[in-house]
Amino acid sequence: MYVDIGNALDGDLGLAREDLDALDGRVADAHERIARGRADSEHGYAALNLPETCDPDAIRTAAAGFDPDHLLTVGIGGSALGAATLTDALGGDLDCRYLDNVDPVWVASILAGVDLSSTVVNVVSRSGTTAETLSNFLVVREAMEAAGVDWTERTVVTTGASGNLRAMADQHDLPALDVPDGVPGRFSALSTVGLFAAELAGADLDALLAGAAAEADRLAGSLYESPAYAYGATTYALAERGAVTNAVMPYAESLERFAEWFAQLWAESLGKDEHGQTPARALGATDQHSQLQLYRAGPADKLVTLVRPREADDVAIPETDLEGLSYLGGSSLGELLDAEFRATEASLAAAGRENVRVELDRVDEHGLGELLYGMEAATVLYGELAGVSTFTQPAVEWGKNAARGLLGGGDFPEADAVSEKRRLEVE
Amino acid sequence: MYVDIGNALDGDLGLAREDLDALDGRVADAHERIARGRADSEHGYAALNLPETCDPDAIRTAAAGFDPDHLLTVGIGGSALGAATLTDALGGDLDCRYLDNVDPVWVASILAGVDLSSTVVNVVSRSGTTAETLSNFLVVREAMEAAGVDWTERTVVTTGASGNLRAMADQHDLPALDVPDGVPGRFSALSTVGLFAAELAGADLDALLAGAAAEADRLAGSLYESPAYAYGATTYALAERGAVTNAVMPYAESLERFAEWFAQLWAESLGKDEHGQTPARALGATDQHSQLQLYRAGPADKLVTLVRPREADDVAIPETDLEGLSYLGGSSLGELLDAEFRATEASLAAAGRENVRVELDRVDEHGLGELLYGMEAATVLYGELAGVSTFTQPAVEWGKNAARGLLGGGDFPEADAVSEKRRLEVE
Repeated sequence: MYVDIGNALDGDLGLAREDLDALDGRVADAHERIARGRADSEHGYAALNLPETCDPDAIRTAAAGFDPDHLLTVGIGGSALGAATLTDALGGDLDCRYLDNVDPVWVASILAGVDLSSTVVNVVSRSGTTAETLSNFLVVREAMEAAGVDWTERTVVTTGASGNLRAMADQHDLPALDVPDGVPGRFSALSTVGLFAAELAGADLDALLAGAAAEADRLAGSLYESPAYAYGATTYALAERGAVTNAVMPYAESLERFAEWFAQLWAESLGKDEHGQTPARALGATDQHSQLQLYRAGPADKLVTLVRPREADDVAIPETDLEGLSYLGGSSLGELLDAEFRATEASLAAAGRENVRVELDRVDEHGLGELLYGMEAATVLYGELAGVSTFTQPAVEWGKNAARGLLGGGDFPEADAVSEKRRLEVE
Repeated sequence: MYVDIGNALDGDLGLAREDLDALDGRVADAHERIARGRADSEHGYAALNLPETCDPDAIRTAAAGFDPDHLLTVGIGGSALGAATLTDALGGDLDCRYLDNVDPVWVASILAGVDLSSTVVNVVSRSGTTAETLSNFLVVREAMEAAGVDWTERTVVTTGASGNLRAMADQHDLPALDVPDGVPGRFSALSTVGLFAAELAGADLDALLAGAAAEADRLAGSLYESPAYAYGATTYALAERGAVTNAVMPYAESLERFAEWFAQLWAESLGKDEHGQTPARALGATDQHSQLQLYRAGPADKLVTLVRPREADDVAIPETDLEGLSYLGGSSLGELLDAEFRATEASLAAAGRENVRVELDRVDEHGLGELLYGMEAATVLYGELAGVSTFTQPAVEWGKNAARGLLGGGDFPEADAVSEKRRLEVE
């Protein structure tokens, strides 16, 4: 991963090189804290050890013997986004679907669109009690039974050491993968949680973990020596100066889901104690025709993170005699995309708007391993600098309790508050 | 469209009912301004006349005779998002793809994935010179020729009264639709630009336009009488009090693209003069496991717009003996989604975080017509209240010039600035 923070300096938010130099001592302290957490396999920090602790052979074993047309991953949040990021980015012939929502119309359409007799189901929930995931799994299981498919022959479980799903796996002798201890869902892309789908889709897990390990090796006591820390420290410093939004804009369709994965990582890890930068998802070049007007001319309260591979396959643009367009003929879509990337970057800088360039060599296993690990380490560093509890998400419990109460799953005072909603309806 | 602003009041940002009452006089003035603009078909305001001025028969005529398996819409920004919003929401058997980016890997994969002999291409550009769109069109045309498909038999042009695409349509006698005058791209969903794809996908254009007309009829001189203005005025009032982000969170997968359409509408219309609220795209229930932690416990600088249909088809959740999950059995995915919607809404309110509920009856033509028109009118109202030039996007020109210069399309000083980029690379 390459991180270029040149355009983060001396923009409207006034971050100077000297400010980063001054911050670098705190980066060194945070790095020590992170290293200690990793050495002790503390909750959360353990995620940064996955390049060493993740056992790809266990994943390969769970996937062995399956050769499906479709993979249905039933999970939500961190139990889906890491895997989806990898399989979306790497492509391939396996049709990977993610049942990460409980919209009934959509669930029904997905089930209608796959051949269940050639589908592997991977149900992913550490606790085994995630309402959305278990509901969807029950629906999928019933659909398989209705289609005459033996679900016990086609289901792989990824869960914690105990609980509903573990018991089910034991009872039916299903292939089962362990969700690693100490790894929050949003940091689990490089574990069993994210890698089973990648393996089934034909990805090279060794290269993924090697990419992650290479990025781990670059963690160091200075932001100028580690791309991940350069990103984490710069975003933190900009947020402190008023960058309330971090717009992540990959210039590759294959990385669109990466922006969604990043948005979870960033929001859920850092959004607490009235702090936290809001991640906004964008996509280049498309969103030049959508968000760029705001980024350049709206409030000076944003950082734009431009992400791209340095190399990709290309497509030539045919010669044309269309008026005023001859300059495009003989060029290529890749050259056009590159020109738009650099033009957008410069146009933001010219307007005083901070931006950071993040590049990987290619959108391949090694590059993705670097990118995902790097962004996780950046998040952890930011959390240390901001002094927040990076690895928890206490604010979501209220709504979970309320929903459970509404569904008759127990007596929760939060559910009572729902019916007291203040209404002012205009129709 | 139903808009409930009850939870926008008396949250952390301190918007009181009296504030809205005080604002309502300005809403009345803005409504008069908008009505005058519509009466005179002024640039931009003319978009709000589309329910009357759009001629669905012209669109039906252009689509007549085609019965393809695939539709490739070649356009970017407002030339793609409106159509994509409609066809994504309405579903159906036609495989609708949107070539709205110039990522070569992705373009090649789309072309490899469709049967070009059963594909209709709709190339959409008012000027006929949009670099991304014309480049992609040249690539598609060549791919058709290479596949032995006569592109002149399968191409429909949507463009302005003159220019490259108009000349090409005339030369080859292609079906051609007029981009209406005075309608900026991001306001063109309910015109030829958005409706051709919908027609080909089997949508009822009359119902779409009737829904829009119904919402137009509800525009009135008070925010309490018009759902669109209730939304526009409330978002404006919250933005004035510090809601820098508007997180739009539909609880329907079919409306995921709507959030993207809205993001363009909102950002490009209102993001200027250092003003403008940043739209963030989210999706319920999925993003409860991603963004909700930030929305509830991060900075009090957000509005969450919760969007959903009041009715949808449902899927039962089978009974289960899984431990602790019996409360789900016998319920349905729709009930779960409803409980999560209301729980999330209440959980935001309980944390003092402002939110607005936007509902449509169903995700169907009439509901979408209401929703898209309503959000356009809300945007125009917000623009009037903020005093910005809602219908322009001057800040994107810099980058367009730079990209064109980089590609050898002329001498642009912006292109020179690109090579002067400040670098501070960490690798």
